[in-house]
Amino acid sequence: MMRLRVDVLPRGAQDLGFQPFADTVLVVDTLRATTTALTYLEQGADHLYLCPDLETALAFKAEGIVLAGERNCLPPEGFDFGNSPIQALERRFDQQTVVMSTSNGTIAAATACETGKNIILASLRNAHAAARKARELATEEIAVLCAGSNGRIGLEDVYTAGVLCEYLISMTECSLDDGAQIALTVRRQFADPLEPLSKSRAAELISNVGLEADIAYAAEVSRSTIVPVFIGRSGNALIFK
Amino acid sequence: MMRLRVDVLPRGAQDLGFQPFADTVLVVDTLRATTTALTYLEQGADHLYLCPDLETALAFKAEGIVLAGERNCLPPEGFDFGNSPIQALERRFDQQTVVMSTSNGTIAAATACETGKNIILASLRNAHAAARKARELATEEIAVLCAGSNGRIGLEDVYTAGVLCEYLISMTECSLDDGAQIALTVRRQFADPLEPLSKSRAAELISNVGLEADIAYAAEVSRSTIVPVFIGRSGNALIFK
Repeated sequence: MMRLRVDVLPRGAQDLGFQPFADTVLVVDTLRATTTALTYLEQGADHLYLCPDLETALAFKAEGIVLAGERNCLPPEGFDFGNSPIQALERRFDQQTVVMSTSNGTIAAATACETGKNIILASLRNAHAAARKARELATEEIAVLCAGSNGRIGLEDVYTAGVLCEYLISMTECSLDDGAQIALTVRRQFADPLEPLSKSRAAELISNVGLEADIAYAAEVSRSTIVPVFIGRSGNALIFK
Repeated sequence: MMRLRVDVLPRGAQDLGFQPFADTVLVVDTLRATTTALTYLEQGADHLYLCPDLETALAFKAEGIVLAGERNCLPPEGFDFGNSPIQALERRFDQQTVVMSTSNGTIAAATACETGKNIILASLRNAHAAARKARELATEEIAVLCAGSNGRIGLEDVYTAGVLCEYLISMTECSLDDGAQIALTVRRQFADPLEPLSKSRAAELISNVGLEADIAYAAEVSRSTIVPVFIGRSGNALIFK
């Protein structure tokens, strides 16, 4: 039986009750890092480099490299793009490497890569494909790691975790931890995915800077079959393809 | 408008996104520390001393002092009682001080006392009275701090947080953070409180040591009007009355 586990916030080795990831991890930052990362790949990008901090990202600045990310929802100084999937749709990124650094999603990905064997970026837009890929790769445990917002639980991520859990329990027999039970409960409470996304604190912050179109885009479920998977490192950067 | 906030796990000053408690905190460890603490007061105890570690608790050992607590669900060496409310019902504790140390609840209480102004121990059994007391004491923010189980989110605590939120939003106009929205969602999904409690990992551990009667007892909602409130410190111990 597959163990299905939902971590509602990233916890590092120094935190009480840290449990290493034994196997496969689905990293979720629905608003917006994992949604945006997916969009760059859909728009032709060759590779994604996820960087834990701005310095690591800026060090990659070069011809043919796109720097994308946010602090307080907006593009940091010296970056080419923000963290907006709608903005990423405006052009193609064929044969380009996109280097991303965001406040929550890239930190969650780094936590997952510390101990996990297979790391996948998941969002509502690729939920079904990401769950299928996790099922294919995992042998004992599938963990969903929610990025949250600045260290606080995010309704949008817990909802997405619930959608992923729902797919996974339809594919294979799973034991559910308390986090997975809570995520499934939240999933079942909302008929329209736009509702939990819109009610989240993350949505409020995004709307405050006029990017609310990103929220409706992020709420579209299973529109994409692309699944970003961790393939290695370049210094502190995590490479996904 | 009152800010209503649910922290699904204790976070200290060293953790990402730590937010100090601005005002009133309801500490929840339904299985079992806050349920048991309440029971000791109902059975006549004068004061509760909550200790973050066993050494602090053992240092209070003396005539007329009752040591109660658990590690791995069972009484630690040198303790008079475990962390079982059913066991606490077996006798009176009139004029006695009960010194408690448990794995999760006493740590959560310590986190709350670091920054909060008014700290209340809440469980399903005193949910209505605890919510009323919080409403009475708070001027700007009511936080529900869930103890969780060894650093992982607990279904039983998030459910209890939802019950407390439901009472609070019926008493006063509140803004809800994502944690409060998730807790309310979980609350509304279960008609019978015994269901989420029984499905929790904490319940599994308690059942494994033959104490499942504690779970049904902890699931009885608003049976008590006693509300343990933080009144001061004695060394590392937090005194509740």
